[in-house]
Amino acid sequence: MEKLVIIGGNAAGLSAAARAKRIDPRLNITVLEKLPHISYSTCGIPYFLVNTVTSDSLMSYSPETFEKERGIKVHSQVRVDAVVPSRRRVEGTRADTGEKVTFPFDRLLISTGVKPKHLAVPGSELENVFTLVNLGDAMRIRPALGAARSVVIVGGGYVGLELAECFQSLGKTVHLFEKEPQVLSSIDPDMAQIIEYELRRFGVGVSVNAKLLALTGSAGDGGRVIGVKTASGLGVTPADMVLLDTGVEPNTDLTAETDIRIGMAGGIAVNSNMETTVPGVYAAGNCAESWCPIRRRPVLNFIGTVAAKQGRIAGENMAARRSKFFGSIGTTILKVFDLHVARAGLSTREAAVESMPVVSARIEAEDHASYYPGARKIWVKLIVERTGRKLIGAQVVGYGDASKRIDVAATAITSGMRIDEFAQLDLAYSPPHSSLWDPVLVAAQAVMRKL
Amino acid sequence: MEKLVIIGGNAAGLSAAARAKRIDPRLNITVLEKLPHISYSTCGIPYFLVNTVTSDSLMSYSPETFEKERGIKVHSQVRVDAVVPSRRRVEGTRADTGEKVTFPFDRLLISTGVKPKHLAVPGSELENVFTLVNLGDAMRIRPALGAARSVVIVGGGYVGLELAECFQSLGKTVHLFEKEPQVLSSIDPDMAQIIEYELRRFGVGVSVNAKLLALTGSAGDGGRVIGVKTASGLGVTPADMVLLDTGVEPNTDLTAETDIRIGMAGGIAVNSNMETTVPGVYAAGNCAESWCPIRRRPVLNFIGTVAAKQGRIAGENMAARRSKFFGSIGTTILKVFDLHVARAGLSTREAAVESMPVVSARIEAEDHASYYPGARKIWVKLIVERTGRKLIGAQVVGYGDASKRIDVAATAITSGMRIDEFAQLDLAYSPPHSSLWDPVLVAAQAVMRKL
Repeated sequence: MEKLVIIGGNAAGLSAAARAKRIDPRLNITVLEKLPHISYSTCGIPYFLVNTVTSDSLMSYSPETFEKERGIKVHSQVRVDAVVPSRRRVEGTRADTGEKVTFPFDRLLISTGVKPKHLAVPGSELENVFTLVNLGDAMRIRPALGAARSVVIVGGGYVGLELAECFQSLGKTVHLFEKEPQVLSSIDPDMAQIIEYELRRFGVGVSVNAKLLALTGSAGDGGRVIGVKTASGLGVTPADMVLLDTGVEPNTDLTAETDIRIGMAGGIAVNSNMETTVPGVYAAGNCAESWCPIRRRPVLNFIGTVAAKQGRIAGENMAARRSKFFGSIGTTILKVFDLHVARAGLSTREAAVESMPVVSARIEAEDHASYYPGARKIWVKLIVERTGRKLIGAQVVGYGDASKRIDVAATAITSGMRIDEFAQLDLAYSPPHSSLWDPVLVAAQAVMRKL
Repeated sequence: MEKLVIIGGNAAGLSAAARAKRIDPRLNITVLEKLPHISYSTCGIPYFLVNTVTSDSLMSYSPETFEKERGIKVHSQVRVDAVVPSRRRVEGTRADTGEKVTFPFDRLLISTGVKPKHLAVPGSELENVFTLVNLGDAMRIRPALGAARSVVIVGGGYVGLELAECFQSLGKTVHLFEKEPQVLSSIDPDMAQIIEYELRRFGVGVSVNAKLLALTGSAGDGGRVIGVKTASGLGVTPADMVLLDTGVEPNTDLTAETDIRIGMAGGIAVNSNMETTVPGVYAAGNCAESWCPIRRRPVLNFIGTVAAKQGRIAGENMAARRSKFFGSIGTTILKVFDLHVARAGLSTREAAVESMPVVSARIEAEDHASYYPGARKIWVKLIVERTGRKLIGAQVVGYGDASKRIDVAATAITSGMRIDEFAQLDLAYSPPHSSLWDPVLVAAQAVMRKL
């Protein structure tokens, strides 16, 4: 019986395990996970912190139920210390007992996700300073959150923005510092400013161009953080708690002593079957690179949907069914208070990095017929490659339905659609759902006027 | 100065007029409309009948404001009697004065929309028996509606279904008769049954396989309708008012004495520039045929979005800017009580008419992460052409967000996307917006298992 070992019990790892087992039920599959829990929704963590959902409801399976229902062995609380491809085994340690364990494999999947980038700033070791990468982090943050009255968030990425809303809704005083000139640098500045407006509208302090200098704490206060010093002219901002959203990177530690290659983008390099440079060793999820069909090179995507897809493809190939991962275009969405913020493809800045000449236009519209009750404002920005007239990027921000518009754009970008065809898309219309000319079509007309 | 005459003051006609004027402001453009009002949302009429919106708010422009803001002459209440291409003029009659009028043209657009099919059934001439095609009809229906307690709707198409909800919400007793074995024959029976369930849940009587035999009225009751006799075993159903949604057809009357060809689908035949078989004479909107890129032949589409797009393209070509209409794929959406019903591309039945071998699958899912509050059920059905594995049809019905899913499918169908690529689309996910595997991707996996 062939042995499959999978390191990591989340989106990529469990998708791979389940898929491989479904294709070939005879496979002997083992999942190793360092935390006590598996199969939880990382994207749901903010809703756990504000008690909208319980930690149980974030988890689809416990190790026991996954094992029982899927016939896949799960070892939780096993930290993998080394991958030894030459001897076809992984070596680890049980977190509870300290016992050394080894697992032999015929095929291996590395799906170890991300780790926070090390932040070289004085005071980052103080108590009540947190990063949030997994459910374990969230479980440490939640009890500390009760006593905190003022929270500083350093970094205005997805996690920082979602947590700003979380903490504010719990009645905390929240201030967000971002070192760049805008929050959410994956979208264009003219879209990001709408988010900043929304944060301030709900009472969140926002400082951009604000480099973190130090976290201050007092010895008399048990080593707890009491303030944040930034180069923003604000001096020291008081804080009972600090949340660092200062970036993550692929967790590729296990490849160190192996021939598994790290790619130019910084993740584990894989081919379209999700196989690494070592035959029989696969990688999937946030630790692996992902093909970008627009840039035509591998990139990093730290998002559960891509992880799950890569995992599924890895699982198919590990079960000897040849299939290919077509890539990802960086589609994301988030809710910040009443605002929906979505993007797909390349931003203007990302296109510039690729030396791609682009034309873009931003329009403002209502999300459905203005005479029908409940119409809300959205802004749509489309980015078109000038030579081939192909849609390569889209951003939608607004109080109305942004989700639908970004998914239409994502589908068109994936298909390599020209803006001329996009502008005539036959989209669904009735007064409660859209307008006669859907906002994405109006945006397309606006770009075409500039081409 | 070149003279453009446009017959019909709605989606197609006004899109054409506005577009042509924008491209070439020197053009002398005249719009002729038989009704007193122009530029109203036909799709908004049901919401006018239930007083959600006023008739004024349905109209973007009055003839006067359109003329003033756009510099386009509008003659409302002018019925066009004849188009005389050989003499480059149209002949008409003013509805208010009976005066005969002629309008010379260099280029002409026919955008005369649809007319109800003649229904050869006894009693169809009785009072309180209505069809609903335009705002004029709605203005006659509304006053009669007040006194009516029981309403019978004959025909379960888009209009019939929307009006069933309308009338029910006004407190009427509503019964809907449909001669086919299902309502809404543009979707598959397994999806239509969900609509029938919803209608009954809200107290609307629904009889399928119910051919209309006669409308009964009593002379003593002023020739008013009092009942509907159908071949449904119900005998005579009492009715104070009857709404006939028994089909419309392109209004091509004006082509009768001309060389303007009617196509195989029954509408005015046009090329991709929206020009008819008579040079300089264009047609757009519901009276014209529309290219179907899936069937690769012209079809009929009675929907405002397509009319507006065709009008826009016609306007560009009439203003001497060459542009092409790429076609339409029959994307529609409607709300029936709490249910959203959407379709795009070909249904199973329509594929069979084209002798296209297809595989389909229907799945049931929630519209976003089940642990996040407000998740609602939707059903997604995808139809794939077996040989080329291309997505050719989609249907989405449900209490949750159907609109987004149908537009993603419509975009993929338009691009000719294979189901293999569709199943890996990088769609936006966060718990309030979708699930890790969006329902359309789950449906794609289900179809692929059958291929």
